[in-house]
Amino acid sequence: MTSEINWLEGGTITSPKGFTAGATYSGIRTYTEDKLDLGIVCSESVCTVAGTFTKNAVKSPSVVLDQQRVATGRAQAVVINSGIANACVGEQGMTDAIEMAALAAAKLGLEAELVLACSTGLIGVELPMGLIRSGTDKIEMHEDGGHELARAICTTDLVSKEAAVSFEVDGVTYTLGGIAKGSGMIHPNMATMLAFLATDAPVDGAYLQTSLSRSVDCSFNMISVDGDSSTNDTVLLLANGAAGGSAIDASSPGADAFQAALDAVCADLAKAIARDGEGASKLIEVVVENAMNESDARVAALSVASSMLVKSAIHGADPNWGRIIVALGYSGAQVKEELVALYINDVCIMEGGRPIPYFKDAVVLSMSGTDVSLRLNLGLGDASATAWGCDLSEEYVTFNSAYTT
Amino acid sequence: MTSEINWLEGGTITSPKGFTAGATYSGIRTYTEDKLDLGIVCSESVCTVAGTFTKNAVKSPSVVLDQQRVATGRAQAVVINSGIANACVGEQGMTDAIEMAALAAAKLGLEAELVLACSTGLIGVELPMGLIRSGTDKIEMHEDGGHELARAICTTDLVSKEAAVSFEVDGVTYTLGGIAKGSGMIHPNMATMLAFLATDAPVDGAYLQTSLSRSVDCSFNMISVDGDSSTNDTVLLLANGAAGGSAIDASSPGADAFQAALDAVCADLAKAIARDGEGASKLIEVVVENAMNESDARVAALSVASSMLVKSAIHGADPNWGRIIVALGYSGAQVKEELVALYINDVCIMEGGRPIPYFKDAVVLSMSGTDVSLRLNLGLGDASATAWGCDLSEEYVTFNSAYTT
Repeated sequence: MTSEINWLEGGTITSPKGFTAGATYSGIRTYTEDKLDLGIVCSESVCTVAGTFTKNAVKSPSVVLDQQRVATGRAQAVVINSGIANACVGEQGMTDAIEMAALAAAKLGLEAELVLACSTGLIGVELPMGLIRSGTDKIEMHEDGGHELARAICTTDLVSKEAAVSFEVDGVTYTLGGIAKGSGMIHPNMATMLAFLATDAPVDGAYLQTSLSRSVDCSFNMISVDGDSSTNDTVLLLANGAAGGSAIDASSPGADAFQAALDAVCADLAKAIARDGEGASKLIEVVVENAMNESDARVAALSVASSMLVKSAIHGADPNWGRIIVALGYSGAQVKEELVALYINDVCIMEGGRPIPYFKDAVVLSMSGTDVSLRLNLGLGDASATAWGCDLSEEYVTFNSAYTT
Repeated sequence: MTSEINWLEGGTITSPKGFTAGATYSGIRTYTEDKLDLGIVCSESVCTVAGTFTKNAVKSPSVVLDQQRVATGRAQAVVINSGIANACVGEQGMTDAIEMAALAAAKLGLEAELVLACSTGLIGVELPMGLIRSGTDKIEMHEDGGHELARAICTTDLVSKEAAVSFEVDGVTYTLGGIAKGSGMIHPNMATMLAFLATDAPVDGAYLQTSLSRSVDCSFNMISVDGDSSTNDTVLLLANGAAGGSAIDASSPGADAFQAALDAVCADLAKAIARDGEGASKLIEVVVENAMNESDARVAALSVASSMLVKSAIHGADPNWGRIIVALGYSGAQVKEELVALYINDVCIMEGGRPIPYFKDAVVLSMSGTDVSLRLNLGLGDASATAWGCDLSEEYVTFNSAYTT
């Protein structure tokens, strides 16, 4: 599949045909030079839409509104602010989410029900609707506005996250692009994480949702920064069909190519989020192979990627296989200790459940880089899964001791 | 119940009648002045015995041996070493566990099958049986040897953990005492945590196991330091009946008094473990009230006590209610946001799911102490649960980046 995908340098959510975006500084966040905190992405025509949302029992009303609107299967734009999450504010939250979408719709000349609204930031504080009203007016939409929008949705992120690919079906070239924000509180079930994806492929609504859920399960739901999941996590995907060609559904020849493109962009954005975890200096990739079944492979990979002791050890470039095996052991996956093999950056350091001699200095040196790969072979079946996390640093604690609600 | 319990100052595992203990420095650990690393607790007569053990799929053979021997219902002594965990060492581990118990049995003149063996420390390293042989010989048993033994089982613990209570049934005074070790890797399902308990009450074996499981569920299984659980976690309880009186079983008049005494000692040791978490400066107590059912209350309390963002906030004395509500929300417990109330050190800061005005300086000041209490009222039912954790400090990360397997 991946051979059919071309990565677009500088690609973003407005790389697909017929999408524009823009952003502004509305005053919600503390002013800093070139700060942006409110933005919109819009399609020239009505799109099919799919979404996945936080599983937290405490949800932002913006999430509830988007769930309702995504259920209609149609959408044309998304308006997003950073700085305030519109959560834990009582009934006013739904009123404000509806108004925020309506303001963007009025500006763009769209039906209000075709606009989705997302927020991220502090909870327990009402959205400053005066600032959002005047801010929405100021937004200018551009064909390459995705870069601005990617910056506007960031909170404690150090870098903005964007990616796009092209792929071909029956001689037609399609583009799929996206942006994301993450940083603290990243975990499975979509923790304070926003991702927005767009494609100019003509994808059937039901298949769009199926393929998004599948991609999210292998990407955003397989990253862990600190195990906390938030009130606002949302992934949205719009498909406007602007590149033409025949409709893509589950039985189309183009279905696999589309899924592969979506998988690739989601995985790329998810890894960028893990790498940019608060205080993180390394991306940790955990591959579990030959598990009894996929569910076991997933929980095992996530358990290792989420272990604070593993994260701390990797921060110190320590090939601490004991902590890795312990995290595997308590994951809930079926494990036969005597069959387990472990590779750190492709060097085998355990076989048959026991440590084997290896050149420790070389492994420690390789672990001092920015990418550390852990591979666990369980020797039980043929299922595999990959999870991503980041190291745990003193900076994480310092940062999160001094940052209030 | 608690009115019937008398705390014994300086109480330990040898406070009950008929128990002796001793410890020595055998050389397993790096030498430091007054370091101890091998010890034994022994009853003058055969005891009924109960135990709870790690749920980790990767278990020390010592745990497997103890599970087999506890299943017989009878035991008389426990030998314990710190420094090396006897885990991930292949078949040699069982051979060594059996020999370690047999060495203690020979020294004490007991049947080998009546001795249990526990280890804690590095994994992947074989027990140095030569040192254990000569060390076992050197151990001198004392009537107040519990204090020595409590020190000998410590690894990264900063303080040893001991407690004992007395209680009365039908005019007979009984004593129940215990010791524990914890520090890093503490979590529900009994993470690198050892606890040894002894009583001179004549407790029926089946009831001993029932009451131990119940007490452990409300104490050692409700603490969280870093979410990792280990290969070696074990809680053992010996009852020798040396104080006389009628046998205590589930239907005896003394059953409740015994359970209350056991609950009290287990909770006291569990809190001591949480307070002494690696790098910790504060004990966090999380009480969840008025949950729909006990399972919900438990998962909610543990979710909040385990949240890295909550732990970091409390380290900084920050009344960050947002993170507390988010951790409640993703716990899996049924939550109606509009009914939730939150108290920090008994000051109400949220009601009806929304923050309310409070005197922040006073709350911050109270949070700068060594004990922080969080109380969440869910307003849904009448179940409650308490969990304990510690704050997350920069020292935790520093320590765990520089400590190898």
